[in-house]
Amino acid sequence: MSLDVLAGALMIAFAAIGGGIGNGLVISRFVEGVARQPEARSTLFVQAILGVALVEVVPIIAVAFGIMKVLGV
Amino acid sequence: MSLDVLAGALMIAFAAIGGGIGNGLVISRFVEGVARQPEARSTLFVQAILGVALVEVVPIIAVAFGIMKVLGV
Amino acid sequence: MSLDVLAGALMIAFAAIGGGIGNGLVISRFVEGVARQPEARSTLFVQAILGVALVEVVPIIAVAFGIMKVLGV
Amino acid sequence: MSLDVLAGALMIAFAAIGGGIGNGLVISRFVEGVARQPEARSTLFVQAILGVALVEVVPIIAVAFGIMKVLGV
Amino acid sequence: MSLDVLAGALMIAFAAIGGGIGNGLVISRFVEGVARQPEARSTLFVQAILGVALVEVVPIIAVAFGIMKVLGV
Repeated sequence: MSLDVLAGALMIAFAAIGGGIGNGLVISRFVEGVARQPEARSTLFVQAILGVALVEVVPIIAVAFGIMKVLGV
Repeated sequence: MSLDVLAGALMIAFAAIGGGIGNGLVISRFVEGVARQPEARSTLFVQAILGVALVEVVPIIAVAFGIMKVLGV
Repeated sequence: MSLDVLAGALMIAFAAIGGGIGNGLVISRFVEGVARQPEARSTLFVQAILGVALVEVVPIIAVAFGIMKVLGV
Repeated sequence: MSLDVLAGALMIAFAAIGGGIGNGLVISRFVEGVARQPEARSTLFVQAILGVALVEVVPIIAVAFGIMKVLGV
Repeated sequence: MSLDVLAGALMIAFAAIGGGIGNGLVISRFVEGVARQPEARSTLFVQAILGVALVEVVPIIAVAFGIMKVLGV
């Protein structure tokens, strides 16, 4: 039972690394792009949100199963 | 049995890192490219989605086997 | 037996990191290159796919042995 | 016996990270170089393949011993 | 005995990460340098090989002791 909690914790923990660094890379370039061309902000915003969604695919799966295991459901 | 869950958790967890950072790298350059040349957006989008697909090959395999082991199927 | 599954999971998990980040690096430069020179897309595409193949050499070996161990073949 | 499999798995797993990210770094610059100077492709290709060979030295040793241990030879 | 194999495997495994990523960083800049200044190739090559030798110092020690322990010599 307790090993299940450890397994769930592992998934949430590493999802935090993947999602954090992955989104950080995308948003950092988005900020850079807005800094260069402020008038393109709304276009870039759409791309960046799409990128965040693509980055989060696997981490969200990991978080979902992680919460399942941590709560012992 | 519980060690199987840990093994599955490991696979999902590291797939989250690989997929998250890998996609983050691709999408960050895509956002940068759109910021520089907004008219090339649709061309770049095709390349970026192709890149996301190539990046996700191994992580998706890891997620598939990971879910299999976590649910004990 | 169960330790074999853990060993296989380890191989698939780290292959996901190696393949994901490695491909992410190659494809991100490919997207950047297409953004700069859209007319060189087909040339760059050949290089990028070759790069993906070279990056995937070791991760694919790891995935193959990992699946072998996870399924207990 | 089973701990030997884990040891072999460890070697193949980390070789996948080292080989994947290392090759990714080299090939990404190669793609960037071809994007800037398409006429230097064959020269750069020689350097890149040499680089891939140098990067793979230690991972290939790790894979060789890893396969040896995983298969229990 | 078997724990010795695990210890040796650990050394070879981490040497593969260190050597792979370290060499990847050196060679990637070498490829970039040749792309910018093709006429400086032989000069850069000497520096890059020197860099590879310096990067490999510790990984080679780790591989040597790792092989010693894995083979149980």
